[in-house]
Amino acid sequence: MLLNQDRLTAHLQRENLAAIVASTPENVTYTSGFWAMTQWIRRGPQAYVILPVPGQGEPVIITSTATLDLVADQRPWIDEVRRFGSFAVVANARELDPTSLRHRDLHALPDDGDALSALAGALQRAGLARARIGVDEVGLMPGDWGRLQERLPSATLVPAASLLRQVRAVKTDEEIARLKTAAGIAERSIAAALSVARTGVSEIELARAFHAQTVLEDAVPVLGCIGSGPRSALMNVQPSERALTSGDVLRFDVGGRYRHYRADIARIATVGEPDGEIRRFHRALLAGVEHACEIIRPGMRASSVFEITVETVRRAGIPDYARNHVGHGIGLDGYDLPDLSPGSSDLIEEGMVLCIETPHYDLGRWGLQVEDMVVVRAGGVESLMTTSGDISVVG
Amino acid sequence: MLLNQDRLTAHLQRENLAAIVASTPENVTYTSGFWAMTQWIRRGPQAYVILPVPGQGEPVIITSTATLDLVADQRPWIDEVRRFGSFAVVANARELDPTSLRHRDLHALPDDGDALSALAGALQRAGLARARIGVDEVGLMPGDWGRLQERLPSATLVPAASLLRQVRAVKTDEEIARLKTAAGIAERSIAAALSVARTGVSEIELARAFHAQTVLEDAVPVLGCIGSGPRSALMNVQPSERALTSGDVLRFDVGGRYRHYRADIARIATVGEPDGEIRRFHRALLAGVEHACEIIRPGMRASSVFEITVETVRRAGIPDYARNHVGHGIGLDGYDLPDLSPGSSDLIEEGMVLCIETPHYDLGRWGLQVEDMVVVRAGGVESLMTTSGDISVVG
Repeated sequence: MLLNQDRLTAHLQRENLAAIVASTPENVTYTSGFWAMTQWIRRGPQAYVILPVPGQGEPVIITSTATLDLVADQRPWIDEVRRFGSFAVVANARELDPTSLRHRDLHALPDDGDALSALAGALQRAGLARARIGVDEVGLMPGDWGRLQERLPSATLVPAASLLRQVRAVKTDEEIARLKTAAGIAERSIAAALSVARTGVSEIELARAFHAQTVLEDAVPVLGCIGSGPRSALMNVQPSERALTSGDVLRFDVGGRYRHYRADIARIATVGEPDGEIRRFHRALLAGVEHACEIIRPGMRASSVFEITVETVRRAGIPDYARNHVGHGIGLDGYDLPDLSPGSSDLIEEGMVLCIETPHYDLGRWGLQVEDMVVVRAGGVESLMTTSGDISVVG
Repeated sequence: MLLNQDRLTAHLQRENLAAIVASTPENVTYTSGFWAMTQWIRRGPQAYVILPVPGQGEPVIITSTATLDLVADQRPWIDEVRRFGSFAVVANARELDPTSLRHRDLHALPDDGDALSALAGALQRAGLARARIGVDEVGLMPGDWGRLQERLPSATLVPAASLLRQVRAVKTDEEIARLKTAAGIAERSIAAALSVARTGVSEIELARAFHAQTVLEDAVPVLGCIGSGPRSALMNVQPSERALTSGDVLRFDVGGRYRHYRADIARIATVGEPDGEIRRFHRALLAGVEHACEIIRPGMRASSVFEITVETVRRAGIPDYARNHVGHGIGLDGYDLPDLSPGSSDLIEEGMVLCIETPHYDLGRWGLQVEDMVVVRAGGVESLMTTSGDISVVG
């Protein structure tokens, strides 16, 4: 299961909430396992999950009739479904396979009208009309919060996107397994790009090789910052026609989505041997990530991780190293909690999956970056990477 | 330019608006050409464009400091930029290339604090503090509408997502060119998938070939509904391990994003010769799309296109054909206006790019679908497709 049910229950109880409503693509998938394609690829289509605290009723998926096939095919752990809206299908087969049968049965449910009516109705039927309910406000469309409150005048609606983000910060085994696969795909995609890298090849050609490997491993391209030479110092660099030349730094800050879970890693290569300054700076940045991996323990403050990492980079060779954060959690979203920044009040917890990174952007010259994905275990950090952060020399 | 400036001006004047604020990824890119990666790949990061009516001031891009490299590299037509937030870069190069120079200059702009402060400040500086302003409400985070109004107490803020969607419905030449390329990439990706299709090959293997072609043509996978046999009747079918068998229908409802513009097309193949019923049903569905392409003219009601198309399919061989819509516009969003449905009040206009589709889902048996992308010209429809909607026989 993706959902960390105990952690959610503890958070709901602490906030005295009888139930939570998920509305963003990330939170719907997280709480139910249901991936409602339309809300993932567009802004607008609505799907919700209602999760009462244990013993207070059954969880429910609320989704458009046009997405019921995905419920039938994915078989999420939540059985109760409410549908809204019209979508024409026929069922002329004499016998139906289990997925088609489930699809037909879901289609035969009553049409609850529009998304918000379906949600309000499901909350009422669940006996939550007078309850204190956490509602993930971020996935709702403008005005829908007020409309939901109007339909449930006796309910107390409490914004809960932040609570769900807190819950999602500590990963379940299934989530860690997916994140590890996503990280591995990103590493192999970098290797595929480097396998074609040589003088004269363009950034776009590297990107093609990179993304081809990603899709051949059943992941979806998301982040593909691949820059060469001075372009490597553009933090969000998008691949261009620029051809690699000898001495170039190549910076990859990349990662797709595997079974909905994100990767975000960074590696450096050079075309030919790097000069001394690049080696020295890179070594300092790598030392920061490596030291962070050594010292992180559950219970540590995220802000301490930031301070120690930055200080390590400074001592290791970049005395004026400055940075706004040295990493973040990752999961269904590319930026989950914790936030490894000086102002963060987050604490490191066992089961968090972190991206630890120490980028350095020198405009017009080069950008260097090491970013590893790791999982926090009781005794320290376990890396999800199979490659080191060392510079790869190509060409 | 992506923006249809005359159409926007006409809409602003009709609504008596002095300016419009774009906030969703689609509308920010549409109005400025600026692709602010972070808001495209996550929900939360904010970027805005302010476009005053002509003669009433200069347009402004407002974006986070962490995305200024993209402004520098993309050179959108809007020169004035405001930035918010902190992001550490250094600039030690003795000489800077033009992109790095522009990046450094943007970085040297004052930090306007947070996104909303930057937006409110830019509106004030533009002399719009007491104006009637259309604000694209969909990209704002919950509560930000009220906070913006508090900062601009004398301004009249009017929700404008719908207005921008209206403007985006009629495409510029640059948009049509990108959509045509996106459609062609989708067609060639289907061809790549069909080139590996034979008995024993899985849906996932087709998907890998499909998406590999998409990324090799510099597009980003988005929609990849590829289903075989009874799975072809799942409208949002996601590729599975199911192996193709003789007689299978293969349904592709697919399309990626090329330079931010979407494709959405559908084609049918069969493993071996299709049976008579499949041929008959497919011919009827194809007749619907072909007839729609023949009769569509600027000025026609979208609801008439729906009625005529459904009626054509019924007469051509599926007497009880039922459907909720027969297509939609396409652009930066997969569902732009117009909406080709019975309840639509949209009118067909010259320059609209339409997806015209007649799917038919028979649960447990097969799904058939033809979906073409076309542009509406003064004298009728020009297809953006290079392949016919005929059944491809493979294996």
